[in-house]
Amino acid sequence: MHSLPPLGFTFAGVPCGLKKTGAADFALIASDRPCAAAAVFTRNKFAAAPVIYDRALVTENPAGLRAVAINSGCANACTGDAGQADAATMAAEVEAALGLPAHSCAVMSTGVIGVRLDMSKIAAGVRLAAPQLSVDGCDAAARAIMTTDTRPKVAFREVGGVRLFGMAKGAGMIHPNMATMLSTVVTDTAIEPAALAALLREAVEVSFNSVTVDGDTSTNDTVLVLANGASGRKLDPGSPEFSAFASALTSLCADLARQIARDGEGATKFITVRVEGAASDADARAAAKAVANSPLVKTAFYGGDANWGRILAAVGYSGAEVDPMRADLWIAAGNGEWEKGREGERENAPTHPLSYSPAAALQLVRAGQPLAYSEKVADAIFAQQEIGVEVRLGLGDGQATVWTCDLSHEYVDINGHYRT
Amino acid sequence: MHSLPPLGFTFAGVPCGLKKTGAADFALIASDRPCAAAAVFTRNKFAAAPVIYDRALVTENPAGLRAVAINSGCANACTGDAGQADAATMAAEVEAALGLPAHSCAVMSTGVIGVRLDMSKIAAGVRLAAPQLSVDGCDAAARAIMTTDTRPKVAFREVGGVRLFGMAKGAGMIHPNMATMLSTVVTDTAIEPAALAALLREAVEVSFNSVTVDGDTSTNDTVLVLANGASGRKLDPGSPEFSAFASALTSLCADLARQIARDGEGATKFITVRVEGAASDADARAAAKAVANSPLVKTAFYGGDANWGRILAAVGYSGAEVDPMRADLWIAAGNGEWEKGREGERENAPTHPLSYSPAAALQLVRAGQPLAYSEKVADAIFAQQEIGVEVRLGLGDGQATVWTCDLSHEYVDINGHYRT
Repeated sequence: MHSLPPLGFTFAGVPCGLKKTGAADFALIASDRPCAAAAVFTRNKFAAAPVIYDRALVTENPAGLRAVAINSGCANACTGDAGQADAATMAAEVEAALGLPAHSCAVMSTGVIGVRLDMSKIAAGVRLAAPQLSVDGCDAAARAIMTTDTRPKVAFREVGGVRLFGMAKGAGMIHPNMATMLSTVVTDTAIEPAALAALLREAVEVSFNSVTVDGDTSTNDTVLVLANGASGRKLDPGSPEFSAFASALTSLCADLARQIARDGEGATKFITVRVEGAASDADARAAAKAVANSPLVKTAFYGGDANWGRILAAVGYSGAEVDPMRADLWIAAGNGEWEKGREGERENAPTHPLSYSPAAALQLVRAGQPLAYSEKVADAIFAQQEIGVEVRLGLGDGQATVWTCDLSHEYVDINGHYRT
Repeated sequence: MHSLPPLGFTFAGVPCGLKKTGAADFALIASDRPCAAAAVFTRNKFAAAPVIYDRALVTENPAGLRAVAINSGCANACTGDAGQADAATMAAEVEAALGLPAHSCAVMSTGVIGVRLDMSKIAAGVRLAAPQLSVDGCDAAARAIMTTDTRPKVAFREVGGVRLFGMAKGAGMIHPNMATMLSTVVTDTAIEPAALAALLREAVEVSFNSVTVDGDTSTNDTVLVLANGASGRKLDPGSPEFSAFASALTSLCADLARQIARDGEGATKFITVRVEGAASDADARAAAKAVANSPLVKTAFYGGDANWGRILAAVGYSGAEVDPMRADLWIAAGNGEWEKGREGERENAPTHPLSYSPAAALQLVRAGQPLAYSEKVADAIFAQQEIGVEVRLGLGDGQATVWTCDLSHEYVDINGHYRT
């Protein structure tokens, strides 16, 4: 995997004192020239101040962004009018420190809700980070946006002379069908903002919107893409290069999304839920999300207990059209990576949907009838760290894949005392 | 509280061997004369075999039911055609043992999904329970339907010479907007089946459909009401007696529903979520349920951490219409019981919505602006075993109350190893 950041971007991550631990909590990304910008935001109606700020910014100045500042440790959400002013001040301070035009810096915040940003700490972060901006700062920036994440999440791609770098923070309060947690993707291609926005929407749907940890949608979820053109390549919609870039962007976002599910709060297992044969893609997605969000399913995965009836029960209350007498259920050891090479595999091995190894897949239900199966084999699959579930509804062509993790004691620990 | 069962009903609860522990797992309720019957069932599309059986039974024979048989330890769900036959056999065996007409016995099952009922054990349960039927068997019956419940759930009412008795099992896989877990209510009034069905639908909406433990909706949820007329009283729609009975039925169902939330799997706290001022009752219900189902909110309650931003975040993604700048948020020590005497209180103390004691209520947000408050007072409220949350949206007259519990380590324990 290529790991050089796109040309023209620099990165920094520093501690500014928002986190009680003294860990890095302020990240800065800057471009040496104006960027085309596109973003997807949370649909939570209590959108945080930085979300409201960025939404307006990207609309007003879609071809002129120069920087992104991100703090962890405080979400600046549910902070009223004062919080709005704080978000604008944070952006203005970055613009002043870097000598950028007004309205060229986006801001993001993550952490506790309902608490005002400590603006003296933000100012300290700007002062500290600005001189540290460097092409080598990707990892430092990715670490500075972590909250309960146990590791930084970064991804690199290169396609047709264009580079992409993305970083994300996830862990909890993550739910599909919304933008998602915080992620910033930068690339050195040139592209029209409208085209970039269309590509981002498509990429987010099958990546960040297909991962769930606990069904909670944050007030701050933001995915921002900046394209600065420093590679000298320009992407025109309809060209083969454009399609290749679209694939790379989607692949990068899916990579980050899977990293988020793997590092969900307290996660001990990575679960891929696949639904096929639904009446529509929307139905498939609803069914897959219901399975992925079910506390009963997730605790069964955690406990390694092959309590598969809970999977069908979740499909049954998802709202998706279901004919119980047509439903098939499979479980398999494995992870979402099988998706990659799956197309060719599909026609040859239609009865082993989740894995290249037929021995690893086990069918539990066929046409609504439970099959006799070895509890030992089922428990062995549920004991894996990476588990796949596939439900085939037998009704149509609708399909969806959702990634999630299990629900563990550690999730309860982390969230019972998050602020302390 | 009156605790005499309605006339003409007898009850039994015995062990038949379905539970590995040897605890009671087969309950029987019989009436000495035909009953008017009404029921509400799960909306889960993988409805269990007994649900499918009872749905047809209540439609075919709404004035002629004589008995209900309920087993715990096995849900007879996702068991295909064979499971359907098992449910019918279970009913027929009870009818034969008690000398009842065909198609006069309802059946319910609860426990593991995807496993066939052991019909030899069911037969043993019928043989054992039939001779033990007695007017004193209410408690034994209520105990025999428990799964992960830590205590039996029963409620009694008497109104205008008519008695009601209800029992329920809950604990996990409980979610509003569906019938609910298992509950049977018996009464000695005479009433037309259609009128009884209408009363039950109204009562369920503000009781069983207003409680949630984990957002999961079971394949088996059933609430069944039987009215045998043994009291000699007959209820005519429109009469004062009819209204009084309706209130008693609702009160009894709400009592059982609150018992279920209090005894949610691993519950250490009882939470009342009240939403007022929503654009509609449906919006209020959606918002209250989102708060009550949020794992982040529920773990914060468990941890005693007054992380109130998560409450507004849940309202924000609930789908309810929200104007962030109109929202108020209160927390208070107390429980759903304040509802009872609240109407008179309301105009006099509009600023202390959740409790008769103004000292116990704390406003955190007014018109979207966070208020300064004492963390000590907030933490003291969150440290209570009974906590109230009230969100006022300031948009209309929509209102709803939902009961739930916290999400604890014990929930994870119970559900990680439920089958073992």
